[in-house]
Amino acid sequence: MKLISFTRGDRPGFGAVVEGGVVDLGAALDGKYADLRALLAGDALAEARAAVAQRKPDFALESVTLLPVIPEPGKIWCCGLNYHEHVQETNREVTEQPTFFLRVADSQVGHGQAIVRPRESTQLDYEAEIAVIIGKGGRRIAEADVARHIAGYACYNDGSVRDWQRHTSQWVPGKNFWRTGGFGPWMVTADEIPFGTSMTLVTRLNGQEMQRATTEMMIHSIARQIAYVSAIAAAGRRRGRHRHPGGVGARRQPPVWMKAGDVVEIEVDRIGVLRNPIVDED
Amino acid sequence: MKLISFTRGDRPGFGAVVEGGVVDLGAALDGKYADLRALLAGDALAEARAAVAQRKPDFALESVTLLPVIPEPGKIWCCGLNYHEHVQETNREVTEQPTFFLRVADSQVGHGQAIVRPRESTQLDYEAEIAVIIGKGGRRIAEADVARHIAGYACYNDGSVRDWQRHTSQWVPGKNFWRTGGFGPWMVTADEIPFGTSMTLVTRLNGQEMQRATTEMMIHSIARQIAYVSAIAAAGRRRGRHRHPGGVGARRQPPVWMKAGDVVEIEVDRIGVLRNPIVDED
Repeated sequence: MKLISFTRGDRPGFGAVVEGGVVDLGAALDGKYADLRALLAGDALAEARAAVAQRKPDFALESVTLLPVIPEPGKIWCCGLNYHEHVQETNREVTEQPTFFLRVADSQVGHGQAIVRPRESTQLDYEAEIAVIIGKGGRRIAEADVARHIAGYACYNDGSVRDWQRHTSQWVPGKNFWRTGGFGPWMVTADEIPFGTSMTLVTRLNGQEMQRATTEMMIHSIARQIAYVSAIAAAGRRRGRHRHPGGVGARRQPPVWMKAGDVVEIEVDRIGVLRNPIVDED
Repeated sequence: MKLISFTRGDRPGFGAVVEGGVVDLGAALDGKYADLRALLAGDALAEARAAVAQRKPDFALESVTLLPVIPEPGKIWCCGLNYHEHVQETNREVTEQPTFFLRVADSQVGHGQAIVRPRESTQLDYEAEIAVIIGKGGRRIAEADVARHIAGYACYNDGSVRDWQRHTSQWVPGKNFWRTGGFGPWMVTADEIPFGTSMTLVTRLNGQEMQRATTEMMIHSIARQIAYVSAIAAAGRRRGRHRHPGGVGARRQPPVWMKAGDVVEIEVDRIGVLRNPIVDED
């Protein structure tokens, strides 16, 4: 299934993208779950799948505004410096442990929504990543058990304001500007992407390829990452985890910054394309 | 007012600590606000104050379990390395911009609850801080306007698992272990602590003073910090912001780590004492 969070008119909802449109899972499940996060927390993917199978699309995909796949995740753990190529271009060293930082919910937008370049900086950069959405929570998940905790996958653009990221040793200010990250277009449920499947990530800026990598090139595997963060606290049912390949704009000569009028795309095979225009903040 | 979040029996609630006990603000305001965060979001401190003035205590303070002052803050921005003494003991340099990282809600406990040393480490350390709780939100708050956005202040123990904090360049893993931070005992509303009032922070471990500093010793003022993070995104109505003086356990010779059976206290004058026992995770 491809699961989405959206607004339609003023009403928030969640559903499944099927041939010919969207099945409204709020309606199909009689309002049993308030949102996609509640559906995952209720371990109700099978219930959703059965409802989708019995129902025709309620409306066209074009009639909704897509939100970040999970609009209000409990925790958004992000793994940085996880490709050798990117570690090299940033002149850093590979660390024995994965490098994690946090994003907050309002730093994200959904597919098709504008990523906002803030007034504070011109150094708005992209980073292709895969979001891993945790379904069944748990603490100290063993690497061998990680697969059964993953609800699905989405594309992620870890949009970064580079000068603010480098103000100090800690990156979070540059990683949390309002509406600078993209999360979408949908979550593809894990049953459709067997754990360990190789996936290719590509970033295009105005149609030009800027980054390309495969999941095999990761330094710390998805299993290792989830085991690591689940040692810190229970893995939420709604946690994203990301990683990015080389080729970011900041490390190009000259640097490439995103600006108003640009369109940035993150494509991950088996998932889809996350596309966002860039606007200046008014 | 001294405002608290609590559970009483199995029921969550919020209230004001007055002479002789607690005024239950859920009941006093006829359930108009779901919790303390909703009260602040509703800009309803005056309403709460009026209700408290007309009511006798509903129950004894001893009858409730205190929760973190705001149990589910939207964002918890923490300012590190903000005292010269601490910058020196960590062999770092003062940066032009304040250094921020993020904590998540389940890394916190309330006054009297146990801080948990995880199985993963023995390097559990304390840090005395002042939590600044944002009332009226806003983006790009000027330093001169910061005062009217502050709802109140609390004591904060930025409990840290030092080896995990140092795994990589990014501190958040060591700052977010489950139930390692303390936030309480209550929020003293800003009307009782005029903006700019000097406050003294003291940490005691098993009664022995370990840290002492005053707010004048901060490198980046509270006004500067709030202006900075409000440039990144709208300052939530529920954002904490912390800073800590020198004397942490990690930089002592030999290091002092907190262990099961210890009691740690953070005292801030005009606010009170936040006290937490340490337990080992079972």
